Amino acid sequence: MCLPFFIVKPNYKSNMKVKLINYTPNPIETAFIAARTCYSGDGPEKLWELSVAEDENKIPDEKMHSLLDNVIASGHHSVLEHINFTFAIEEISRACSHQLVRHRIANFSQQSQRYVAVKRDAFVVPDTIKSNPDAKIIFDELIDNAKKTYDKLVDIGIPKEDARFVIPNAAKTNIVMTMNFREIYNVCQIRLCTRAQWEIRELFWKVKAELSKIDELKGLADYLQPKCVILGYCPENRSCGMYPTREEVLGNDS
Amino acid sequence: MCLPFFIVKPNYKSNMKVKLINYTPNPIETAFIAARTCYSGDGPEKLWELSVAEDENKIPDEKMHSLLDNVIASGHHSVLEHINFTFAIEEISRACSHQLVRHRIANFSQQSQRYVAVKRDAFVVPDTIKSNPDAKIIFDELIDNAKKTYDKLVDIGIPKEDARFVIPNAAKTNIVMTMNFREIYNVCQIRLCTRAQWEIRELFWKVKAELSKIDELKGLADYLQPKCVILGYCPENRSCGMYPTREEVLGNDS
Amino acid sequence: MCLPFFIVKPNYKSNMKVKLINYTPNPIETAFIAARTCYSGDGPEKLWELSVAEDENKIPDEKMHSLLDNVIASGHHSVLEHINFTFAIEEISRACSHQLVRHRIANFSQQSQRYVAVKRDAFVVPDTIKSNPDAKIIFDELIDNAKKTYDKLVDIGIPKEDARFVIPNAAKTNIVMTMNFREIYNVCQIRLCTRAQWEIRELFWKVKAELSKIDELKGLADYLQPKCVILGYCPENRSCGMYPTREEVLGNDS
Amino acid sequence: MCLPFFIVKPNYKSNMKVKLINYTPNPIETAFIAARTCYSGDGPEKLWELSVAEDENKIPDEKMHSLLDNVIASGHHSVLEHINFTFAIEEISRACSHQLVRHRIANFSQQSQRYVAVKRDAFVVPDTIKSNPDAKIIFDELIDNAKKTYDKLVDIGIPKEDARFVIPNAAKTNIVMTMNFREIYNVCQIRLCTRAQWEIRELFWKVKAELSKIDELKGLADYLQPKCVILGYCPENRSCGMYPTREEVLGNDS
Repeated sequence: MCLPFFIVKPNYKSNMKVKLINYTPNPIETAFIAARTCYSGDGPEKLWELSVAEDENKIPDEKMHSLLDNVIASGHHSVLEHINFTFAIEEISRACSHQLVRHRIANFSQQSQRYVAVKRDAFVVPDTIKSNPDAKIIFDELIDNAKKTYDKLVDIGIPKEDARFVIPNAAKTNIVMTMNFREIYNVCQIRLCTRAQWEIRELFWKVKAELSKIDELKGLADYLQPKCVILGYCPENRSCGMYPTREEVLGNDS
Repeated sequence: MCLPFFIVKPNYKSNMKVKLINYTPNPIETAFIAARTCYSGDGPEKLWELSVAEDENKIPDEKMHSLLDNVIASGHHSVLEHINFTFAIEEISRACSHQLVRHRIANFSQQSQRYVAVKRDAFVVPDTIKSNPDAKIIFDELIDNAKKTYDKLVDIGIPKEDARFVIPNAAKTNIVMTMNFREIYNVCQIRLCTRAQWEIRELFWKVKAELSKIDELKGLADYLQPKCVILGYCPENRSCGMYPTREEVLGNDS
Repeated sequence: MCLPFFIVKPNYKSNMKVKLINYTPNPIETAFIAARTCYSGDGPEKLWELSVAEDENKIPDEKMHSLLDNVIASGHHSVLEHINFTFAIEEISRACSHQLVRHRIANFSQQSQRYVAVKRDAFVVPDTIKSNPDAKIIFDELIDNAKKTYDKLVDIGIPKEDARFVIPNAAKTNIVMTMNFREIYNVCQIRLCTRAQWEIRELFWKVKAELSKIDELKGLADYLQPKCVILGYCPENRSCGMYPTREEVLGNDS
Repeated sequence: MCLPFFIVKPNYKSNMKVKLINYTPNPIETAFIAARTCYSGDGPEKLWELSVAEDENKIPDEKMHSLLDNVIASGHHSVLEHINFTFAIEEISRACSHQLVRHRIANFSQQSQRYVAVKRDAFVVPDTIKSNPDAKIIFDELIDNAKKTYDKLVDIGIPKEDARFVIPNAAKTNIVMTMNFREIYNVCQIRLCTRAQWEIRELFWKVKAELSKIDELKGLADYLQPKCVILGYCPENRSCGMYPTREEVLGNDS
C-alpha cells in the first residue's frame, strides 16, 4: 500500500513535550518473527537468531520490512502489539490528560494533584486565547486568582487533595505512557483527525514525530495517519475537506 | 468464607447520584451456569433451562448461591465477568471522573466539556471546605469568578473547548458506567480503602449500596469490601487502624 | 448508512448450537442514553427515565434508533459497549474454541478437559471429510481409536488431564461467552469474511442470526457484516470476488 | 517485604523451550521514573535522565530498587506495566497453549495448524505416560496413527485446516508471547500453584527462570511466586500442604 504523505504537520500551539524515552529493541525483527512464527515450521528462537544475526545468514532487512508492509496493508495487526514505546509526556493540560487516559490499551503513570502541589506557571494557554488580547487578560487573571486561592486554602489547612478543586483544567500535568504500535496506529486514526481536540492532536503528531526519528523502525511511522488516509475516504457525516466522504467515493448503495 | 460486615458506611459528603439503571437479568443463574459449564458434561443451554425453570426441575437457589460463595472464596472469579451493571453517575467532580476512568476494564460514556456548556451551580464542594467558613468564602469567590470568566470567553468568541480551560476541577460531570461484577469486586478493594480519595470512595460505597438493594443478587454485594477485609490484613506500609498489617498478622518471614 | 444486505448465509456445516441466553435489557435505550449523556446537559438518570417511559414523554423509538444508526456509520462505537450478550455455545471443536478465545475483549467459561471425561460421540466432522467417503472411513477409525486409547489410559490410572493428550482437535467443547455489541461488530468483520475458518465463520453467522431475532434491537444486527461490506472494498491482497480490492476502488495512490 | 524463597523448582517434565528474546531496556529505571512521576514536581524526562545518567548525578540503583520493593509490597503495581518481556515459547502442547491464550492482558502470535503441516515427532508426552510402559505403548500407537491419518487425509485432498481435526492435543505448537511484568506477577500467582496443570506450571517456572538471569532486574524475579507465598496463606478450600489455609491462619471470623 502506498499512502499519500501529504498530510501537513499542524502548527504546534503549546509547549508540551513528548519524548520517546524507551522502546522495544529490534522492533522490526520482533514483529517479523512473530508474524513468521504463525506460518512457519521453524520455531521463534531460530527465527529470532536469523533475524538479528550479524553474518550472511541474517534475514535481509528488506524482506522483514516488506512482510510488515503487507501485514499492515492487509489488516493483520496483532503482531504489531509486540513492539512497545514509552513516552515522557510533559506540560499537557488536565483537560487533555483526561481524554488521553480514556485509551484503555495503554499504561499510564500520571502526576498526582493529591500529592504534588500546583506551581505558579503550570498552566496551558490555548492558542485561541493566547492570540486574543482581551481573552488573554481575563484568562490570566482567573488563573492567577485560582493559584492564589489554592495557596490560601492550603495555608489555612485544607488538604491538597481538596484545595485542588479550585485548580482549572488548564493546569499542566506529566504522564509516562507505554503504548504498543498497534494501539498507536489505531489511536492516531482518531486523534490525528482534524476534528480531534487540538491538544491531543498535537500530542499524537509528536508521538508520530518521535517514531519517525527512529531509523530502526524503517518508515513504520509513515503508517500513522488519520483515518481518512487509511480508509481512502472520510467516514464522518461531513468531511473537513481533506478527503471526500464514503458516500462520495463509493456511492449510496455500498 | 464469612466476612466481617462491620465496615461502617462513611458519611456521604457530596450530592453525587449513583443509580443502577440496568443489569444482566438472572445474574446468579448466569454466573452459576458459566461455572457449571466448566465442570459438567451438560451443555450450558440445558444448564440455563434448569437454572431458570419454574417447576420442580429448577436448580435450587441455595445450590447456585452456595457454588458462587465457593467460587468467590477460592478466587476463581472469571465467571463473575458474565454479570454486568450499568450505572447513571451524576454530579461527581472532574477530579473524581479523571480517577474513575483510569479503571480500564469498564465502559464509560462521559459528558463532554467540549460540547456541553458549564452551568452556574455545577460544582462539587469538598466537605473540608464546606465546613470551614473562611475556606468556603474564597472557594465560592473563585468558582464564581471562573464561571464568569468562562461565560465572557465564550461571549467574545472563544470556542467552548478552549474556554473550559478556566473551569476548575470542582466542575460536576455525568458518566454512564458499565462494569462487570469481577471488576467491581476488584475496584472496591482499592476504592473502599480509607486511603482512597473521599469522592471516589463515596462513589463505590454507593455502587455497593445499589447492588445491595437487588434481591436477585442474594447477598453477593456483601463481598464488596476494602482489601483488608478480603485479605485478613492491611497490605499497606501503615494501616489505618481497622486491620493489623501483614507483618503483624503473619510475622516477618512470611 | 445503507449497507447492502445481500451477503448470503453460508450452508451450515456442523451441528454447533449457538443460543443467546441473556442480554442487557432495553439495549437500544442503554446505548442511546450513553450517547446522549456525552452531549447533553441532562443527566443519564433523567435520560433513562425518558427513554423507558410508558407515557407521552417517552423518547420515540425512531429517534433513538436513528441516533444509533448515525453513531455506527460515523465510527463512534464506544457507546455500543454498554450492551452485552451472553451465548451458550455447544458442540464446537477444540480447534474452533482455541481460535475463539483469542478474542480478548470478551468473557469465556469453557468446559474443562482436565475434569470432564470425553464422550464417545463428542467429535465434530468437517464437511470436506463428511462428504468424502474415503476420508470419512479413516477419520472415523482414528477418532474411534483415540477414544478407546483415552478410555484405556484412564483405566490404567493415567489422570484425565494427561489422558486427554490423545484427544483430537475434533473433540467437541462447550463455552459460555459474554461479548459486548462493539466487540461483536468488530469480530464479525473478521470472522464473517469468506477467508475465515469455516467453523468460526459459522459460529458468528449464528451469533448474528440470534441477534437478528431480537425485536428490541430494531435491526442493529444488520450492521454485523464482513469487513468488505463495512469498508466498501476488500482490504486483503486478493479479494474472494465479492468486493473489489482497495486499489481497484480507490486507485493506487490513495 | 521479605518473601520466603524455599519454593522448590518442579522437576521439568517436558522439552518445552522458553527463551526470553527481548525486553524493555533499563527495566528498573523505567518503572522507577513512572512511580516517581506520580509524586514528583519533576517531569519524567528529567527523572529519566537522572536515572540513566553515567555520572555522579545518577540516582543510585539501591534507591530505585528500594522504591520498587515498596511498590510491590504495598500493591501499587501499575508502574510495573511499563516493563515488557517477549518470549519464544516452543514445543508446548496445544492443550497447554489453549490455556495460555486465556490470559487476556498479553500479546500472542501462534503457529497456525491451518497453514503449517504437522511434523512426525511434534508431540508432547506427559510424564505420567512416559513413565508407564503400558500407557506409553498405546499412546505412541495412537499418535503414530493420528499422524498417518492426517497425512492420508492431506494426500486425498482434504485441506490442512480440516485434516488437522484428527491431530491430538499432544501436538506441539510455537508461540511468541509479550507480557508485562505486572501481568507476569499476577499469572505466576495462579500458574505456579501446585494445583495448576503441570505443563503451564512448568512454562511459568521457566518464565521466572529466564527473568532471574537478567542482572538488570536486580532480583525483581524473586517476587514471582504462587499466590500462597504472596498472601501468607492458601486461599483454596484445601491446601496442598505447603501453606495453611486462610481459616487456619486468620480464624473463622476474618
